[in-house]
Amino acid sequence: MQAVYNIAEICAQMGITDVVLSPGSRCAPLTISFARHPRITVRTVPDERAAAFIGLGLAQTQRRAVALVCTSGTAGLNYAPAVAEAYFQQIPLVVFTADRPPEWIDQLDGQTIRQTDLYGAHAKGTFTFPADTSHADAKWHSARIVSEAINLAQQFPAGPVQVNVPLREPFYPKAGEELRFEAVRVIQETPSRPTLPGPDLVALRHALRQTPRVLVVAGQHHPDEALLLALRQFTAAYQIPVVGDIISNLHQPVGATYDLRTAPLGKQDVFMAVPERGLKEALRPDLLITFGQSLISKALKLYLRDSQPVQHWHVQAAGPVADTFKSLTRIIRLEPITFFEQLVATDYSPFGGLVSAEDTAAAKEAGHTTAPAATKAAAPGSTPSVTTPRLTWPTSGWALSEQDAAAKAAYATPWSKAESWAKGFLHDFLAQPDQPFNEFAAFHHALRHLEDGTALHLANSMAVRYANILGLPENRRVEVFANRGTSGIDGCNSTAVGAALAQPARPVVLMTGDVAFFYDRNAFWQNYPTPNLRVILFNNHAGGIFRLIDGPRQQPELEEFFETHQPLTAENTCRDFGLRYFTASTFAELKLALSAFFAPVSGAALLEITTDSATNAAFFEEYRKAVRTSFS
Amino acid sequence: MQAVYNIAEICAQMGITDVVLSPGSRCAPLTISFARHPRITVRTVPDERAAAFIGLGLAQTQRRAVALVCTSGTAGLNYAPAVAEAYFQQIPLVVFTADRPPEWIDQLDGQTIRQTDLYGAHAKGTFTFPADTSHADAKWHSARIVSEAINLAQQFPAGPVQVNVPLREPFYPKAGEELRFEAVRVIQETPSRPTLPGPDLVALRHALRQTPRVLVVAGQHHPDEALLLALRQFTAAYQIPVVGDIISNLHQPVGATYDLRTAPLGKQDVFMAVPERGLKEALRPDLLITFGQSLISKALKLYLRDSQPVQHWHVQAAGPVADTFKSLTRIIRLEPITFFEQLVATDYSPFGGLVSAEDTAAAKEAGHTTAPAATKAAAPGSTPSVTTPRLTWPTSGWALSEQDAAAKAAYATPWSKAESWAKGFLHDFLAQPDQPFNEFAAFHHALRHLEDGTALHLANSMAVRYANILGLPENRRVEVFANRGTSGIDGCNSTAVGAALAQPARPVVLMTGDVAFFYDRNAFWQNYPTPNLRVILFNNHAGGIFRLIDGPRQQPELEEFFETHQPLTAENTCRDFGLRYFTASTFAELKLALSAFFAPVSGAALLEITTDSATNAAFFEEYRKAVRTSFS
Repeated sequence: MQAVYNIAEICAQMGITDVVLSPGSRCAPLTISFARHPRITVRTVPDERAAAFIGLGLAQTQRRAVALVCTSGTAGLNYAPAVAEAYFQQIPLVVFTADRPPEWIDQLDGQTIRQTDLYGAHAKGTFTFPADTSHADAKWHSARIVSEAINLAQQFPAGPVQVNVPLREPFYPKAGEELRFEAVRVIQETPSRPTLPGPDLVALRHALRQTPRVLVVAGQHHPDEALLLALRQFTAAYQIPVVGDIISNLHQPVGATYDLRTAPLGKQDVFMAVPERGLKEALRPDLLITFGQSLISKALKLYLRDSQPVQHWHVQAAGPVADTFKSLTRIIRLEPITFFEQLVATDYSPFGGLVSAEDTAAAKEAGHTTAPAATKAAAPGSTPSVTTPRLTWPTSGWALSEQDAAAKAAYATPWSKAESWAKGFLHDFLAQPDQPFNEFAAFHHALRHLEDGTALHLANSMAVRYANILGLPENRRVEVFANRGTSGIDGCNSTAVGAALAQPARPVVLMTGDVAFFYDRNAFWQNYPTPNLRVILFNNHAGGIFRLIDGPRQQPELEEFFETHQPLTAENTCRDFGLRYFTASTFAELKLALSAFFAPVSGAALLEITTDSATNAAFFEEYRKAVRTSFS
Repeated sequence: MQAVYNIAEICAQMGITDVVLSPGSRCAPLTISFARHPRITVRTVPDERAAAFIGLGLAQTQRRAVALVCTSGTAGLNYAPAVAEAYFQQIPLVVFTADRPPEWIDQLDGQTIRQTDLYGAHAKGTFTFPADTSHADAKWHSARIVSEAINLAQQFPAGPVQVNVPLREPFYPKAGEELRFEAVRVIQETPSRPTLPGPDLVALRHALRQTPRVLVVAGQHHPDEALLLALRQFTAAYQIPVVGDIISNLHQPVGATYDLRTAPLGKQDVFMAVPERGLKEALRPDLLITFGQSLISKALKLYLRDSQPVQHWHVQAAGPVADTFKSLTRIIRLEPITFFEQLVATDYSPFGGLVSAEDTAAAKEAGHTTAPAATKAAAPGSTPSVTTPRLTWPTSGWALSEQDAAAKAAYATPWSKAESWAKGFLHDFLAQPDQPFNEFAAFHHALRHLEDGTALHLANSMAVRYANILGLPENRRVEVFANRGTSGIDGCNSTAVGAALAQPARPVVLMTGDVAFFYDRNAFWQNYPTPNLRVILFNNHAGGIFRLIDGPRQQPELEEFFETHQPLTAENTCRDFGLRYFTASTFAELKLALSAFFAPVSGAALLEITTDSATNAAFFEEYRKAVRTSFS
């Protein structure tokens, strides 16, 4: 068993700090060695589906690999939804599945399935731990694959890997037996950052300067202060509009003030729904630049597919690239931050990133003006600097000519006007008196109450859509997470629980609908307190989304087979799991409840906002109608 | 969409009557066509994991294929645990997974994963429905694979198949649009029953006659009256002991009375735990004959592995065969019923099954005596005949010589003595006064209360083990089900719910522990009443099994990482789902509660029996100690 016990030591040396395991006997050697390892935090969660999503939430928040451990049999299959989400959301998970040794597969023993390559196309790789490590080469192999698995999980694009661990009895050390970890050798991997060769950079800059209608669209992206800064500098330098959904985390303030001139746009779900042909024409890009993962905004997605830009560059350092808008013409193998930094750097730096002071001085001597102030990338998790970077307009060299600048401004203006209009429209629409109580407006009010520093988790499917329409209050530092890798409803609670466990000092708010919430109630069925967790449950007693879509709304099967009415309230669930329980079913109650709910009292809490599905649909239809008719 | 709508019609024509679906938009054409089909019962269950196990429960009870329908994305992955269980328990499921068309895979669209061959090694086959059926050949293909999939699912050994159905918008018929089903051609498959050629049958009979120490062991098997009768006739004719776990369903009475002489044995978990070397030696078989799937009794399994019979025949018509006891020497490609019938038939019938009256007459003329009375196999679901078959001892031809019969009796006697001793021991042990309230004894009392005609579902892991030790009251017609394909705890509630939906007029009783129960609470999160369902929940607030095993019991991690204490009671769950709630935590309360709980009142009910994990472990240890020391 020593080789198995060493797994914990290898994981610790490779930087894994958190393990989520589920009870079982076959996995006992893994359980015991992780539990006894001094540098690893182990939590046990009985429902493996929830366990895996809790692990995903931990990894998503901490931005490093988390290990999962389960027993043999269908335990590992219950991980499959989270593994697929991790695969598509690029979150590193190292899944240790305990197994019977190969000779006992298909021999009618209990809890025995075919675990090799259990996750098929949804794992980055699958490793088989040797069943017998008595030979020295087998032991070397056993240690090596754990290093390899962790490296593979963390390599960009990150994702899940499986290590299947066949185990023969006895599983347990004798009573009182000391378990020791051997000195192990691990294989660390130092990731590099790709940069663009000079001539290619010049060509891209040239294209950017020459093309009046350039648009940047960000897909889902983790919060990254340094990237935001680079983007602002890029916008300032090139006057190119940047659009991002709420899950692209571009809305965060950079520095102390919200600078409208370089702020990314986020109201596309509103203004893209305006049927005006003139507006659509004015917004049409010739060159589309994208980075990050998926979009939420269906309106923007369909618009871009429809508008067929002449060129579409996607910036992604490695891995397969989606042709999301049917217009992809170039894949740029850079990290987005490097791409934007290189494009605004005063001179080409062969080492990537912002140029050094020496480079800048050299560039000046060569006749260039000052480059945008360089700012080092903030370490993940550090407090962002509150100094607004000084944005200077470059006037020569790679900078825009007056004519180019005018052309760029001509294209950027309708975008910023559309954004301004959408903000004003939303404000007015939501301020109208005599509304019936409805979830769209309630969602808006709840979003206004999020405090600075919140990690906001948005469940699929309506919660994330509402949030993308409504947006966050300006100048609020709120990081946004959503399981948009597969857009499933199956682990939204658990992911938020994982996030709350990862950062206990930070408010973690989950906004969710009733179907996603009750689906994943087992997220709370574990013994680790999350006093920082706040769940806002929008309960319309059904999959209300189906009433908002034309197709199902017109079918006689709507109520039974699409909406699927469900009668639960969260009261009993809160009682079961010790969540403080708040309710609201009028605007007045909501106002009171939100204050009480967000009061700085320790202890997980849930606010259930009860609305009527038909009223919600009618109000949302009114909103959609108003969008279509109010644009000016 | 017509080809997609036709799926419902093909399913109906192929004999599928029940579909379990989960809400979604991508699957709408399937949902709508199944919902509108006049001969199909559709139920919708929001949690796909529960939905699939409910489907499995329906298929397990009805003994025919059930279809599942889900939307694209991780929905289908939540089916994976039930699909694996269906694979290993050989239950036919036809899984329709709605998908995006192939061109949209990996393009960052929502709810899009890689669905081709989603279940890997745990499906019998995977089919891809054509994305475009406008070509006549594609339409032919689309219909053909649905027939093929259903046939494959039902072919022995039955199991799950996947049909991945890529769907392009629009998904919904226009408002008020009639949906019609075309006349479709289906490909029905008529299964055959293999029989043994005469010379092979003679050889087997010869071996059976010549070998004094022959033992029949039945693995998990669905209840089958005709098989039981054949087995009794076989036992009567050859005086060979037959041993079966509770899940082999051999305990059912055949006819009106319980005939001890031919009754199968079921107390192996008790007497095999006796350490007496003499007993073990007396029971050792030279020829082991097995049929059916897995065993529960670990004691019997280890004993047979250890005793290494000279020959081990396994009777199974088709498919891979496990070498469960490391002693397999012959695979006999017959259905078990044919095997036992052919062995006792007076003459070889080339058509299999029992010989006809003419054959019997011919056999008599040829000098044979009367064969055991022939009885036609009862149709599944029909009321078993109450006439005890007349068992006559054959005296010539294939029958045993006096010497052979004496040798057989010499081997059968210690088996029947061991069985009798175990029954007496259990009776006395459980009747002892001044017991602390504990789940082993409570389980015994609950089993005594099961009424005739009950379908008993036993959850993994302790429930099925307790039941196998304790056994059912004699002469009680109780059919036993357990998810022993993979022995998972993940779908025990849902499987019982499926069974209750399948046979609403019959009492369905689920006996389960707290971990399995709370794991699968979403079984009840659907809108279909199961007034015939009774859940007996043994709540020890932990995975109590871990305290019963030496290994984990001795570890400091026992409570947190193995038992995993969980504080829930079922009260709130019952409140949420409208289950009538009963409790007991003393023997006196249990007695009262059992009567009330089993009273013929309509409406699902749950009886929560609360015990203490440490007391349970101590009592069970006492039981184990008594077994080891009481044998005489």
